[in-house]
Amino acid sequence: MIPTKKEVLEAYERVRPFVHQTPVLTSSHIDFLTGAKVFFKCENFQKMGAFKMRGAINAILQLTEDQKQAGVVTHSSGNFAQALSLAARDLGVKAYIVMPENAPQVKKEAVKGYGGIITESESTTIARENEAKRIQKETGATFIHPSNDKNVILGNATSAFELLQSHPDLNCIITPVGGGGLLAGTALSAHYFGSGCKTFGAEPFEVDDAFRSLQSGKIELNSTTLTVADGLKTFLGDINFPIIQELTTQIIRVQEQEIVSAMRIIWERMKIIVEPSSAVALAALLREKEQFSAKEVGIILSGGNVDLQNLPF
Amino acid sequence: MIPTKKEVLEAYERVRPFVHQTPVLTSSHIDFLTGAKVFFKCENFQKMGAFKMRGAINAILQLTEDQKQAGVVTHSSGNFAQALSLAARDLGVKAYIVMPENAPQVKKEAVKGYGGIITESESTTIARENEAKRIQKETGATFIHPSNDKNVILGNATSAFELLQSHPDLNCIITPVGGGGLLAGTALSAHYFGSGCKTFGAEPFEVDDAFRSLQSGKIELNSTTLTVADGLKTFLGDINFPIIQELTTQIIRVQEQEIVSAMRIIWERMKIIVEPSSAVALAALLREKEQFSAKEVGIILSGGNVDLQNLPF
Repeated sequence: MIPTKKEVLEAYERVRPFVHQTPVLTSSHIDFLTGAKVFFKCENFQKMGAFKMRGAINAILQLTEDQKQAGVVTHSSGNFAQALSLAARDLGVKAYIVMPENAPQVKKEAVKGYGGIITESESTTIARENEAKRIQKETGATFIHPSNDKNVILGNATSAFELLQSHPDLNCIITPVGGGGLLAGTALSAHYFGSGCKTFGAEPFEVDDAFRSLQSGKIELNSTTLTVADGLKTFLGDINFPIIQELTTQIIRVQEQEIVSAMRIIWERMKIIVEPSSAVALAALLREKEQFSAKEVGIILSGGNVDLQNLPF
Repeated sequence: MIPTKKEVLEAYERVRPFVHQTPVLTSSHIDFLTGAKVFFKCENFQKMGAFKMRGAINAILQLTEDQKQAGVVTHSSGNFAQALSLAARDLGVKAYIVMPENAPQVKKEAVKGYGGIITESESTTIARENEAKRIQKETGATFIHPSNDKNVILGNATSAFELLQSHPDLNCIITPVGGGGLLAGTALSAHYFGSGCKTFGAEPFEVDDAFRSLQSGKIELNSTTLTVADGLKTFLGDINFPIIQELTTQIIRVQEQEIVSAMRIIWERMKIIVEPSSAVALAALLREKEQFSAKEVGIILSGGNVDLQNLPF
């Protein structure tokens, strides 16, 4: 079931008062390097520093008053943990966040800073899911998945929607793909609001589950997670995968060194901070620049949360 | 002789086609930390990554055709070397840049990338000045000082001019002070185009020559240059000092750790890259936040050229 155009528009009206309308930046140097005209949608400037805020807000706003009263729960050690915490706080709702006990202290502090209630679990997927289920049962909180949730996807779609409002002639949009929530949402907006606008996903060769999933027709997992793009280690879900199958053109895979190089270009030339996962989209454009030559290309810079003590260059 | 309002307006019309009208950003977190309403004028997004482009363009545009034919020369190992190189290239003029032989390779490459013709000299001030004089004599090039030049100051003034066009009610503007060219230009615009808008300079305790110069009434030098704010090691000149004496309210000095901390806040919260010298202005606001409480404060983020391999955190 592909969400409708009306659902995307309703999500936009719903989240608009609670998120930043992020700026769109360009770089003549990057246009020169790629041979394309590139428009960067800066979700690194979004509240809490990533597009995840959009999906989190939309998901909570869709709850009933009783559900809001009981709170929300998720398991994440990344941006969605912070997004759900901040979105919940903004809406006066409790957020329970299951984090692996070995998650970096800086991420735990960020979640706490946004008012999230942290429960630590063992770091296996099973342990985290079980802990989330226990909290659901005990508190009545609603579980919200970071990427495989229709309302999260619809919230994420609002970034590309905004981009297409200001740049309606884009030939394509490239986003990183990890759990698939941003790619699916972007594909919806490109499909409904673009003018022949194609959607591309970009992911590291090291975690190319989305590429393989589209080839095999079923959700594939990753056997390793050795990528600098730490937001892209997750895999697709049964709600976003059909959207991605239906509405995206291609998944472009990139090498680790291409990610670091693209990240460095964005930092040095655009003077903005993006996380490695965000740089994957520019890396894909640079790798396949022939097919994007002279095109108007949108890139969703998904987030800017990096540990300044631990940079890849 | 204080430059006139008309001269600032003329400089603005002159440089406008050649520079970016940089954005003004805000941060609710920084407003919370400071208790003020802060408007950041992002010269880190300026061409070549710093406000220096404005002064360089204005200075070259004021030359006669014969002078342009012979080129321009400066001595600088910092942003002005890049600015003069790029401004000259944009205007079809040769730029001779005297750099100390021990300048970082990355800075030499940047100047070359913008088409500057580098001559290396010993690193003493005398040696650099002599080398510049030799080039002047041999080529007929016009010497342009990085900060102590009326046309450079007028070009620099256009940043605060733009800021005040969009935010006319600012109570004050804070800029870093090194050679004094940005502070003097900012003070001119605040004086002529603000509404009771005061101008503050910010500098490291380690190189507090501007503070001491205003106290003693004559240009003071620095005996040490042990600051992370590498753009602020220079001292005032006879053209900008009278403007600073006449039109600025106070020089606020800050500790090294306050600079690094302010830089980190800007990077982490605003997701933009600024150089340490730029962070000095926010450090000053944080240090003296009582006097700026509830005020509308402009800050000129002077530049974003950092060596990512050598960050202070």
